[in-house]
Amino acid sequence: MSYKQGQIFSFGPNLTPIAAMDAGETIDVVCQDSCGEQIRTEADLLSKVDLDHVNGATGPIEVRGAQPGDTLRVRILDIRVEKEGYVGIEPKLGVLGDRVTEARTRMVPIRNGTAVFSKDVRIPIRPHVGTIGVATGGPNLSTFYPHDHGGNLDTKEIAKGNAVYLPVSQPGAMLALGDIHAIMADGEVCVTGVEILGTVRLRADILPGLAMKRPVVETRESWMALGSAETLDEAARIATADGVDLLARGRGMAWEEAYMLASLVCDLRISQDVDPYRTCKLVIPKAYLSRLPGMAANARRRSRTARRRT
Amino acid sequence: MSYKQGQIFSFGPNLTPIAAMDAGETIDVVCQDSCGEQIRTEADLLSKVDLDHVNGATGPIEVRGAQPGDTLRVRILDIRVEKEGYVGIEPKLGVLGDRVTEARTRMVPIRNGTAVFSKDVRIPIRPHVGTIGVATGGPNLSTFYPHDHGGNLDTKEIAKGNAVYLPVSQPGAMLALGDIHAIMADGEVCVTGVEILGTVRLRADILPGLAMKRPVVETRESWMALGSAETLDEAARIATADGVDLLARGRGMAWEEAYMLASLVCDLRISQDVDPYRTCKLVIPKAYLSRLPGMAANARRRSRTARRRT
Repeated sequence: MSYKQGQIFSFGPNLTPIAAMDAGETIDVVCQDSCGEQIRTEADLLSKVDLDHVNGATGPIEVRGAQPGDTLRVRILDIRVEKEGYVGIEPKLGVLGDRVTEARTRMVPIRNGTAVFSKDVRIPIRPHVGTIGVATGGPNLSTFYPHDHGGNLDTKEIAKGNAVYLPVSQPGAMLALGDIHAIMADGEVCVTGVEILGTVRLRADILPGLAMKRPVVETRESWMALGSAETLDEAARIATADGVDLLARGRGMAWEEAYMLASLVCDLRISQDVDPYRTCKLVIPKAYLSRLPGMAANARRRSRTARRRT
Repeated sequence: MSYKQGQIFSFGPNLTPIAAMDAGETIDVVCQDSCGEQIRTEADLLSKVDLDHVNGATGPIEVRGAQPGDTLRVRILDIRVEKEGYVGIEPKLGVLGDRVTEARTRMVPIRNGTAVFSKDVRIPIRPHVGTIGVATGGPNLSTFYPHDHGGNLDTKEIAKGNAVYLPVSQPGAMLALGDIHAIMADGEVCVTGVEILGTVRLRADILPGLAMKRPVVETRESWMALGSAETLDEAARIATADGVDLLARGRGMAWEEAYMLASLVCDLRISQDVDPYRTCKLVIPKAYLSRLPGMAANARRRSRTARRRT
């Protein structure tokens, strides 16, 4: 699957798939960089790109059998990136956009697993998927936005070895993804990571009945409840509410008890502070929550699917 | 030094010391728990404590020789905590205060280095100092507030082995600290960590000429520029601005370049989201900034002081 076959620039309730896959199937998805290959040299600036071709997400991909009320688990098996990416700034964009006087682009070659930021600064890369989502339950949201359907989550843990859980709102889920970053820190403070073209190898599973309101990321060590809203304050509130709810239901604990426990062991963090909606995450260590509420039954269902396919 | 000799409930420009110490000297400071020993059983509730005796900070301690324009570096050498602490919730307090219907207290025994939250949940402790600050440059701020002088920073990295740098605004600095937590996660979402009485062993150094606007925390791996303000959004902006400035000046890099680099390697995080001002931190890995701007000269000066004392 490649962006050349199709990409979307907004997530809405009615998306026409460019391809279909089975649950449990592994596919490769080629994603254009977030500026749609409009930045090829340092003379190409964020301020000059055609915004109609920015933040495209390859897809939508129908996941056969996914139904509203299910959860789609997308495991990121690998991300391969191209040989060069870029980082950019532009007045009014980013956390300190008021201090930026003119747009700048820096090309960043990728060599031997490091991003060559400058002669002196080489950064080990850790590629992740910036934008990943499914058809929404109603609203049409540009791919610039993160929200309950996923979208521009810019969460660095959506990386190799991890998984993102997305609530299915429409038949077939309609998965789309793009906006690969070779490296980015929490906050994405200047408004970009190292933006780059890349290929994501993923496997999608359907977890029927594991109803979720919003995206959750799974790493080896933790669950992350993601909340996106107009301000960091509101995003933090949503992520905390969702995370405490997962902890309470997952452990069979009173809500008040889970709220106190979260204050002691669950870090409230920022995914990004630069998109039209901000994204925060409540990080629940697996030491305190081994699986999501409702997940045991689904794990069995998933194994049945896997067995059928082998 | 003990809270029994004196504690303050606000940081202002004019503080009368209860004791004095030399730069380079190691002292023990006994700090009352944040509720001033008003919570001893689960029947004692946050909603019933006398607020005039809450969040006391032991001190002020004059650091001889500290002058406005200097920076005070406080190394936390050790924190010993008592055998029992507590965690509490109260309607309207904390990130989800609107969902709390009544105040609750849970006593949390500390056994063999773990906080016994419940029969099933034991949490390895990592004690830190919640409130630490110096006399302000002007305003009077209750010890509930974190701000440029330090105060209620609730930053979990102000822990054993780490250091906090505070800008000196008044002769003698006038250090005060309290509000020990046996364990707390980023966000402190329910409004408390495990609040507990404790003894902090610390050493304070004076770094003349290392002018700082706001607190910085040093861990083994990183520098953290702390920003506190009425909203998370504004606190995040301050922390990012300070951190990018440290990175630019410390590396002799153009500001724009440091801003881009920060977006790739400096996590923007939340210290706490529950105090009257919120606190965020930009985390600068030492791999990209080995020392603070202006620090080399000060390190030499500090060594001279140390030699004189031995």
